[in-house]
Amino acid sequence: MSVIRQDPTTKEWVIIATERGRRPHDHEARAEPAERRRHDSGCPFCPGNEALSPSEVFRYPNEPGAAWTTRVVVNKFPALRAEGEPRHREPGPLFREMDGVGHHEVIIETPFHDRLLPLMSDPEVEGILKVYQARYRALQQDRRVKYIILFKNHGQRAGTSLEHPHTQLAATPVPPLLHRRKTEVAIGHFDDTGRCLYCDLVEEELKDRVRVIFRTPSFVVFHPFASRAPFETWIAPTEHQPSFGQVTPSAMAELASVLRRTLAALHRGLGNPDYNFIVHSAPTEDENRPYYLWHLQILPRLSTLAGFELGSGIFITTMMPEESAAFMREHLDPGPSR
Amino acid sequence: MSVIRQDPTTKEWVIIATERGRRPHDHEARAEPAERRRHDSGCPFCPGNEALSPSEVFRYPNEPGAAWTTRVVVNKFPALRAEGEPRHREPGPLFREMDGVGHHEVIIETPFHDRLLPLMSDPEVEGILKVYQARYRALQQDRRVKYIILFKNHGQRAGTSLEHPHTQLAATPVPPLLHRRKTEVAIGHFDDTGRCLYCDLVEEELKDRVRVIFRTPSFVVFHPFASRAPFETWIAPTEHQPSFGQVTPSAMAELASVLRRTLAALHRGLGNPDYNFIVHSAPTEDENRPYYLWHLQILPRLSTLAGFELGSGIFITTMMPEESAAFMREHLDPGPSR
Repeated sequence: MSVIRQDPTTKEWVIIATERGRRPHDHEARAEPAERRRHDSGCPFCPGNEALSPSEVFRYPNEPGAAWTTRVVVNKFPALRAEGEPRHREPGPLFREMDGVGHHEVIIETPFHDRLLPLMSDPEVEGILKVYQARYRALQQDRRVKYIILFKNHGQRAGTSLEHPHTQLAATPVPPLLHRRKTEVAIGHFDDTGRCLYCDLVEEELKDRVRVIFRTPSFVVFHPFASRAPFETWIAPTEHQPSFGQVTPSAMAELASVLRRTLAALHRGLGNPDYNFIVHSAPTEDENRPYYLWHLQILPRLSTLAGFELGSGIFITTMMPEESAAFMREHLDPGPSR
Repeated sequence: MSVIRQDPTTKEWVIIATERGRRPHDHEARAEPAERRRHDSGCPFCPGNEALSPSEVFRYPNEPGAAWTTRVVVNKFPALRAEGEPRHREPGPLFREMDGVGHHEVIIETPFHDRLLPLMSDPEVEGILKVYQARYRALQQDRRVKYIILFKNHGQRAGTSLEHPHTQLAATPVPPLLHRRKTEVAIGHFDDTGRCLYCDLVEEELKDRVRVIFRTPSFVVFHPFASRAPFETWIAPTEHQPSFGQVTPSAMAELASVLRRTLAALHRGLGNPDYNFIVHSAPTEDENRPYYLWHLQILPRLSTLAGFELGSGIFITTMMPEESAAFMREHLDPGPSR
């Protein structure tokens, strides 16, 4: 018999039907990833091809003649552009639209074509997270921006066409309805209890332990009670903090190690699976409110969303998070890599 | 510059960024589908293999010794099962769950492995729609059921593993939150105007004409103003009717021709694309309310949902619906096929 669980942050129901799926260890059978080259002369993100993405907004180190370790460029096919004002138009009584004003950037994480995040050292990952945060804070200054989302598409099933390691950042002039919904639920909880729903959730997960993969002084990694997909993984701070822009420098070093170890467990355990990760933060106007907690959500793309999910918004997953969390603990490395 | 449009039924925003995508005619270049066999001895849905899906709930014609033209069976790996009661449990202060009670059936549309809906005659399609409706009405009688969704996954990118033509029906003990949202918006519109939002929307689309592909006395086919994906297509009644269970026998014949012609235009125009379709109806308790209109939504799966969509719920599409609708009109056949 399957079980239907409610996501406490959205109140959405998720169906967990384990008969339909494979066991965690079945995923180990996946082939090891193909050999990747360290440099690909045809890749627009490899050094030497900088002219293919000319709208550079950030480079580190930024010294004449020095080789870069991280670059940020405007997306070549941007979903949103920095010019103009997001004015609402009404082309018909029921129809509303606005120009696609905002930002859409690509963070090229490394000059090396084959250097995946889970295979980096902790200090390298920390350097990249600092760039994420620098761009997050820079775009936050734009008063047209209501919401900033950082996301990675790794592998074809996760929707990427370029294999060179990169993350994207989009800043939208409207807050997503999905976030509005989360805010409603979180405010309801705050009004009822005087506490942050997400902080309570982290506390409950730590108390339950079965879905927790590991914790460090400032962070916890777990598979949520109502996971939407097998191996959905959350990294969340253990203290209230609404926005990724607020992570302190000392916590950032810790976060780098936590993220690297988490991605490495997935990489080893599932044989370099395709995945998305998303850094969820409060909308820029709400980042000092007491009811939201930023978190990084990893969604391995082991199955395909079908008509039921697209039509109902109810996800069907095939693995109990308690079981996938235990599998992750088996594949976890002992600690920091220097 | 991209444009951001609001879906009037959910108030969600969709980004339409045409620079990122291909033009409609680029999709014509797709290879013609591989030859399919009329019978596949390894297929669980082909005649002769009925024993592989033993839980048959419907067969037509149901006469001893007669060959069937349509069968309905319980899904072999059901997300929901007909046994038990959907009682809520609270395994922790923030955690709610219930048993996966409901129904999950598969409608095997034809004995022929290679007989796709767009290639059938109108009367064949009508026969299948009648089976959809018969099962819809049968499951509606189950008081545990709150919501019934009919959906088709065609092709691997749409999430199917079996190529034999089939549609699925799921009956859930909870209404999807996505539908709750639509209901809220539609009730708001009804309270403001005294009219059904969806009927008004159909009227506006008919007035605008640019996104309409064709209309018949009782139905209209169009690409919605805020389409979530290239070639998203809606088939909707032109008179108020909340549930697919309410379609009259005479309208069903018309609907069969409308559906067949719509799928045939997609099949020809895009070279048998992978797609999902979903029949959206009001929840079973709301089917006599004045604010919802059932409709059939077709979602071709030409691109992959990536981190931005999964994280924000904001869809990025690459084609203006006005442009894809014009392309569909070019590929439309003249009328009924007998």
